[in-house]
Amino acid sequence: MPDNFDKFNDECGVVGVYNHPEASNLAYLGLHSLQHRGQESAGIVSSNSRQLFSHKGMGLVADVFSENAISELHGTSAIGHVRYSTAGASHIRNAQPHVIEYARGALAIAHNGNLVNARHIRDELEAYGSIFQSDMDTEVIVHLIASSKENSIVDRLTYALGCVKGAYSLVLQTENRLLAARDPNGFRPLALGKLKDTWVIASETCAFDLIEAEYVREVEPGEIILIDENGLKSFKPFPPAPYTPCVFEFIYFARPDSNIFGANVYEVRKELGRALAREHQVEADLVMPVPDSGVGAAVGYAEESGIPFDMGLVRNHYVGRTFIEPKEEIRHFGVKLKLNPVKEIIQGKRVVVVDDSIVRGTTSRKIIKMIRDAGAKEVHMRISSPPTVSPCFYGIDTPTDAELIAASNSVEEINKYITSDTLGYLSLGGVYGAVKAGGDSYCDACFSKSYPIEVSEDTKKAPQLALFKEGA
Amino acid sequence: MPDNFDKFNDECGVVGVYNHPEASNLAYLGLHSLQHRGQESAGIVSSNSRQLFSHKGMGLVADVFSENAISELHGTSAIGHVRYSTAGASHIRNAQPHVIEYARGALAIAHNGNLVNARHIRDELEAYGSIFQSDMDTEVIVHLIASSKENSIVDRLTYALGCVKGAYSLVLQTENRLLAARDPNGFRPLALGKLKDTWVIASETCAFDLIEAEYVREVEPGEIILIDENGLKSFKPFPPAPYTPCVFEFIYFARPDSNIFGANVYEVRKELGRALAREHQVEADLVMPVPDSGVGAAVGYAEESGIPFDMGLVRNHYVGRTFIEPKEEIRHFGVKLKLNPVKEIIQGKRVVVVDDSIVRGTTSRKIIKMIRDAGAKEVHMRISSPPTVSPCFYGIDTPTDAELIAASNSVEEINKYITSDTLGYLSLGGVYGAVKAGGDSYCDACFSKSYPIEVSEDTKKAPQLALFKEGA
Amino acid sequence: MPDNFDKFNDECGVVGVYNHPEASNLAYLGLHSLQHRGQESAGIVSSNSRQLFSHKGMGLVADVFSENAISELHGTSAIGHVRYSTAGASHIRNAQPHVIEYARGALAIAHNGNLVNARHIRDELEAYGSIFQSDMDTEVIVHLIASSKENSIVDRLTYALGCVKGAYSLVLQTENRLLAARDPNGFRPLALGKLKDTWVIASETCAFDLIEAEYVREVEPGEIILIDENGLKSFKPFPPAPYTPCVFEFIYFARPDSNIFGANVYEVRKELGRALAREHQVEADLVMPVPDSGVGAAVGYAEESGIPFDMGLVRNHYVGRTFIEPKEEIRHFGVKLKLNPVKEIIQGKRVVVVDDSIVRGTTSRKIIKMIRDAGAKEVHMRISSPPTVSPCFYGIDTPTDAELIAASNSVEEINKYITSDTLGYLSLGGVYGAVKAGGDSYCDACFSKSYPIEVSEDTKKAPQLALFKEGA
Amino acid sequence: MPDNFDKFNDECGVVGVYNHPEASNLAYLGLHSLQHRGQESAGIVSSNSRQLFSHKGMGLVADVFSENAISELHGTSAIGHVRYSTAGASHIRNAQPHVIEYARGALAIAHNGNLVNARHIRDELEAYGSIFQSDMDTEVIVHLIASSKENSIVDRLTYALGCVKGAYSLVLQTENRLLAARDPNGFRPLALGKLKDTWVIASETCAFDLIEAEYVREVEPGEIILIDENGLKSFKPFPPAPYTPCVFEFIYFARPDSNIFGANVYEVRKELGRALAREHQVEADLVMPVPDSGVGAAVGYAEESGIPFDMGLVRNHYVGRTFIEPKEEIRHFGVKLKLNPVKEIIQGKRVVVVDDSIVRGTTSRKIIKMIRDAGAKEVHMRISSPPTVSPCFYGIDTPTDAELIAASNSVEEINKYITSDTLGYLSLGGVYGAVKAGGDSYCDACFSKSYPIEVSEDTKKAPQLALFKEGA
Repeated sequence: MPDNFDKFNDECGVVGVYNHPEASNLAYLGLHSLQHRGQESAGIVSSNSRQLFSHKGMGLVADVFSENAISELHGTSAIGHVRYSTAGASHIRNAQPHVIEYARGALAIAHNGNLVNARHIRDELEAYGSIFQSDMDTEVIVHLIASSKENSIVDRLTYALGCVKGAYSLVLQTENRLLAARDPNGFRPLALGKLKDTWVIASETCAFDLIEAEYVREVEPGEIILIDENGLKSFKPFPPAPYTPCVFEFIYFARPDSNIFGANVYEVRKELGRALAREHQVEADLVMPVPDSGVGAAVGYAEESGIPFDMGLVRNHYVGRTFIEPKEEIRHFGVKLKLNPVKEIIQGKRVVVVDDSIVRGTTSRKIIKMIRDAGAKEVHMRISSPPTVSPCFYGIDTPTDAELIAASNSVEEINKYITSDTLGYLSLGGVYGAVKAGGDSYCDACFSKSYPIEVSEDTKKAPQLALFKEGA
Repeated sequence: MPDNFDKFNDECGVVGVYNHPEASNLAYLGLHSLQHRGQESAGIVSSNSRQLFSHKGMGLVADVFSENAISELHGTSAIGHVRYSTAGASHIRNAQPHVIEYARGALAIAHNGNLVNARHIRDELEAYGSIFQSDMDTEVIVHLIASSKENSIVDRLTYALGCVKGAYSLVLQTENRLLAARDPNGFRPLALGKLKDTWVIASETCAFDLIEAEYVREVEPGEIILIDENGLKSFKPFPPAPYTPCVFEFIYFARPDSNIFGANVYEVRKELGRALAREHQVEADLVMPVPDSGVGAAVGYAEESGIPFDMGLVRNHYVGRTFIEPKEEIRHFGVKLKLNPVKEIIQGKRVVVVDDSIVRGTTSRKIIKMIRDAGAKEVHMRISSPPTVSPCFYGIDTPTDAELIAASNSVEEINKYITSDTLGYLSLGGVYGAVKAGGDSYCDACFSKSYPIEVSEDTKKAPQLALFKEGA
Repeated sequence: MPDNFDKFNDECGVVGVYNHPEASNLAYLGLHSLQHRGQESAGIVSSNSRQLFSHKGMGLVADVFSENAISELHGTSAIGHVRYSTAGASHIRNAQPHVIEYARGALAIAHNGNLVNARHIRDELEAYGSIFQSDMDTEVIVHLIASSKENSIVDRLTYALGCVKGAYSLVLQTENRLLAARDPNGFRPLALGKLKDTWVIASETCAFDLIEAEYVREVEPGEIILIDENGLKSFKPFPPAPYTPCVFEFIYFARPDSNIFGANVYEVRKELGRALAREHQVEADLVMPVPDSGVGAAVGYAEESGIPFDMGLVRNHYVGRTFIEPKEEIRHFGVKLKLNPVKEIIQGKRVVVVDDSIVRGTTSRKIIKMIRDAGAKEVHMRISSPPTVSPCFYGIDTPTDAELIAASNSVEEINKYITSDTLGYLSLGGVYGAVKAGGDSYCDACFSKSYPIEVSEDTKKAPQLALFKEGA
Repeated sequence: MPDNFDKFNDECGVVGVYNHPEASNLAYLGLHSLQHRGQESAGIVSSNSRQLFSHKGMGLVADVFSENAISELHGTSAIGHVRYSTAGASHIRNAQPHVIEYARGALAIAHNGNLVNARHIRDELEAYGSIFQSDMDTEVIVHLIASSKENSIVDRLTYALGCVKGAYSLVLQTENRLLAARDPNGFRPLALGKLKDTWVIASETCAFDLIEAEYVREVEPGEIILIDENGLKSFKPFPPAPYTPCVFEFIYFARPDSNIFGANVYEVRKELGRALAREHQVEADLVMPVPDSGVGAAVGYAEESGIPFDMGLVRNHYVGRTFIEPKEEIRHFGVKLKLNPVKEIIQGKRVVVVDDSIVRGTTSRKIIKMIRDAGAKEVHMRISSPPTVSPCFYGIDTPTDAELIAASNSVEEINKYITSDTLGYLSLGGVYGAVKAGGDSYCDACFSKSYPIEVSEDTKKAPQLALFKEGA
């Protein structure tokens, strides 16, 4: 579960509700459950069958939506979105759902994932006279829907999605229809639930739990779902593609209480920890996680190894904004604001520290130094995934190659840099053994450089689309 | 000068600055001078030749722009906009300048005026696959620019403006060009100024005064001005049309210290007052204005009639937000928050009250009752314009026919309703006599129902374009 | 009427309401009418006979009080306060009404005026163990009330006011009583009004007009008024003192539509203008005020001299916050943001500019330069009061001697500095001729250095009381 | 560690820094570490030897202090405070440090703990003429300091603290001195640390860890510490009292990484868990904590019992504000917003749920129902403290007797109410066994009704001091 460290940033979470007298309230609660998937902006668009109502804002769900704002999102159908993004493009203009008007009426769209040919399609559309008003790759999808010659919204959406490549888990709202779609590779999760006569869509099942909806099934890869007064219809208009859900959702992204891709996230993390214990045994007195994302794997590691588990690091949950550092620098300042070791637990011990991944290595280095300062005799770093060697272009905001420590350093070099006594990464085989409950194929490009969908050099170099820049 | 009474609402003010190291700061000061033309939102887009920078917000210029915000609007060229609108469409999405990206790069546009065929063009563009993201009629202009087959920005703009009908005073910013345009009828003012090597464009000349720019000339009706590194070029691509500037800008809208359409606003107002005195003489002891918009005409009326001028009504300038009224209602509450009579001045006197126009009649009625309560022996209402019988569709936000008291009542009926002893409206001839310094033809549709450009029934009925509604 | 120029700053306005089901709403409207007396903070304390309810905040009345805030100020009795102060002491801690608890219950106090022996009393009280929690001289009054050995609130207040020297117009609220008091010299205005069975107290009568209360009489100098369930009682416990109301309230401070000290402010200002015309005749084409405070005197000057009146300067009322100036400075920037000359009115004319006073001279200098730039042939400055040669210690925030241009310069030197052709100040005799409607004795210390109550050197040097400084 | 459940609310955290060029920045970071002790308001007062500088605000430390605010808190010495309180008295007026001026200069005080004779002293002081301006019991301490006849600040403070009864851990700031004091019973923690030549005081040692200060020792019960240019002096002016630190700080309040009363909090919690396992064995498949406060005890329980530990409940850390519930109620809404069970972990299992205490029982009931809904076969509730039968009057904001479920219900009745299969509370003997590392005597009044300092009926009935009520 993302925890605001200088790690990967997740892109988004989406939710949809159809046929409920308080649709926008349910959407808002769903977004609260998905808050870990995006803390930068939040938005909901509802429909009362005649008109769409939209409310978006920068910040957390609880801050964006007042009781009054919810009450003005009329109607029995609604979609919602939470978003994270890098600082540069942080602007209300890029908040979703994105609402537009076109020949067939109004349309709102909320998108989790990243397209890899957006720039290309954007150039083509512009060549034919289209204008773009945001940085979002999502905007090309609505342009394509609008420019389609097809008649029905499903056919138009099929046309649009047939043009784009990459990762998308989508919900769409028209005046009287709710749609959902997931790319043929199924990169990002998207689940279908039901609460009496109400259909619910959400990025993760934890959203269903809060609003007491029942999980029905995943929205399948390549599936388009249409919900209207005639009920739910499913379409599979695209040629089948290899099913490659993002393995990193299990490792770090999703909430432990969610089920995605057919398995429970927490159980997978424990299994990852167990596999890690088998692959990288060590004599030690204590297994401790880097909280919160390392907890599941640490519990698994402890169970498998028989070494006692303990919470040797305490997390301060009141972090969120930048803190002011004194001029006379404090060692490991950024990490210290969030984590503090419990000396009495650690002192004189040989400790195994379990984390989900290493990005730049700087945080791990600081954590290990802090643990040593607290009196650990040995520090053995265990990572419940393979070295992260390559960026993601399908919706996880990883840094560039140049910043990924594992892109240019061996495990031994990393071990030296982060100052651990030993460093053990789980093998890709070990990962696959652990996630098999969810299926047997995944996108593991960040570990293997094997990208299921080709990424153009353009996309690699210029992730930002816009030629203009808007103030906060 | 608009004063937040329940009168006409003005639409917008625009400004442009080219070739100044602090272009955005000058644009911001220009907007402050034009604040009376729109208090709902403010925005500036600047360019540093490579990229556009945008900052917009709801509220007054001073509140929207911090020093920090200005400092991030880089570059030597900038355009700005202040906007008023009715509550329904009050949203940051509709704040201008409107910024887009199209095949030729980035483009920002700021618009004062109203198009009368926006819905029609919008429908056509949508039929060809275009999407719209705002309520603004201005959005059709950028779509037309983008869809033009022409090569140069001037030709593309010419194409776009050739398609639209109505009122527009525009400034546009591209990466390295500033453009200005005014519709062939010249409904709204737009002036060109110079400050050393810097070109300045503004809705009214009062903006030049603050930043010490010199007035050069009006942007002419039907003219497109292009300013780039090669200097200023003027284009006149449209067939000539009758010159019909808005006479109401003189009567109420523009700031008294501005020169528009070739004449000074304050002088015109005094002249309107003089003409009013000649047309509607009355024996009285005192001439007093409804401040601030009636001051000029009252001074003129006093001069011509020889009746002493005095400020019998004091205005409270700290009004802006809604005030909370006690349940036990206060008579004339809304008016009383803003105006209070000076009893000692009025008591026992026969007073001539000069105002610029009457819209619904309710405010005049309350003012007259207040003046009577203050002890006036007689109250003679004098209006420095003819009865307002028909709405404006070219950029002034008048109420519908049904709400305009003069649309369905004779002068005598109005006199009775507002409870004045006598009521005198200036004749249209009187108006033309007073404004002749500015030219001899005007748009006077709100008085005469004679619309220089035909207005479709669609536009009359549904001024709002959008199918969706956004929260504040 | 104060207008935020770099002039005198007024200290405060107070209001009290007894026996009205919406007491706090009336107090709030009263404060709105008194907004010109203080824009820094606003507060109301109400009572429901058992408990006091308080709400205070920084900013304008309309911003501090929401409908919700008003609704939580329960009870049928309330007092209110608006405050201005210099930047240093601008803090919510100093916002009034000041609420305390002491042996007899709760007490709230709102104060207009300045004490001249507050530091001395504060030192004495501290020597006996008292603690102080604010910068406000008002705090000594509540300490004295609490430390009094008397039994009744009136006797306690009498004791407290017997100890202090200086200017005070006070309203006080206890659980079931409303009190008002005015110092024996009667420096600041305070009026008593009635609305059916409701008693109202206010700094100026304009507050009565808005809420439709009837003016009854002034709270007399040295009077204490007690209002409770037994009705209104008046006390005159102090030895009589010379009646010396502040003449500057007439000249600049009070709203023109108010009656203070027995006369209407606007009429006095016109009379000041007439006297000024008699004393300082000049051949000219135009009389124009510096708006808004110079309007009354200018109208009077024009009437008396027969020279036509006109509004040659237009005021921008959207000023309030600091504006950002370009690095390449704009001439007269600060003044230009607020005032702009109407060239067409001024050009080629010999103009008489009427203002109420000159403080530092810098603003006058800028205004005159602007008027000359606008083409005036001659500029004759006329001031409707004598030279301001000495600071006020009774509640008007004048600068120190060192900053008052007239403290160390002759009229001719000032004339030269501000670059007028001629400069004429109204004589003190002229002032007394004009204000005689209000009585024949006044405090004119700022013009005459003759202070009705001695001011200690301490008070002159260290107007700030506190030893600590609070962030905004 | 407090976690915003409807449990106990902690009162406050305090910090002091002496002799550091960035004293206020260190104080601010210290407050961030103590954020769990109070989330309602935060404040810092610094001194540059001549003057105090204060900044306070409502909200979290990160929101109250901007970089700018910190930079205006000049000087090399500073104290800080974070505060929680019940809604009624939530107001900036009650934010600390409380700053006053008295005969000897300025004084700021920050207080953790509750006095039990504040009302009584307040009445006495008022009888002698003192006035009170807040709800805070702390205000009586400053009144007593000011009214003392002693000469030195230490003697004055000794006098003041000699008058009051109850719990206090204090830091005080004068122009050139920093003081700390702890009541003779030592109810609340207070620690002394050092960072090179800088002295640091803090409620908990976790504050030292962040700023890299070294723990020196506890401020001893009954000790007054004076730090000035001559270094640190210790005073023990009070007769010795039984040492009764709050055992509940170990059980729930303090951060696990802190050392208080001579022992590490996390280790104590584990020991409590182990003792709980010994006292209340049960056959089960899984031990899980109610996060975050139950984690330590759950780990200890698991270790001792041999039953596997797991995180069966996931906590959503984005909670803080009130959330809007749909009209059609969601079961266990309040708890569900914060906690969600991991079904896959729980399903079919016999689970031991470990929490630190039960207050009203409603939360436990909801949690147990949630766990059963998730498929648990049996739910055995284990509480790492005895039944909470009586409120705290020394600084922990427990509800009244009437609301404490254990005040009027047997364990069996509670078990039935919360719907657990079995319910086991740790015995008081068990608690003492676990906390013995920290000493052998504690205040356990909330479990035993044995209050170390007598509490008057007044204090029990009317915890709120003020007669007036201030808006937010």
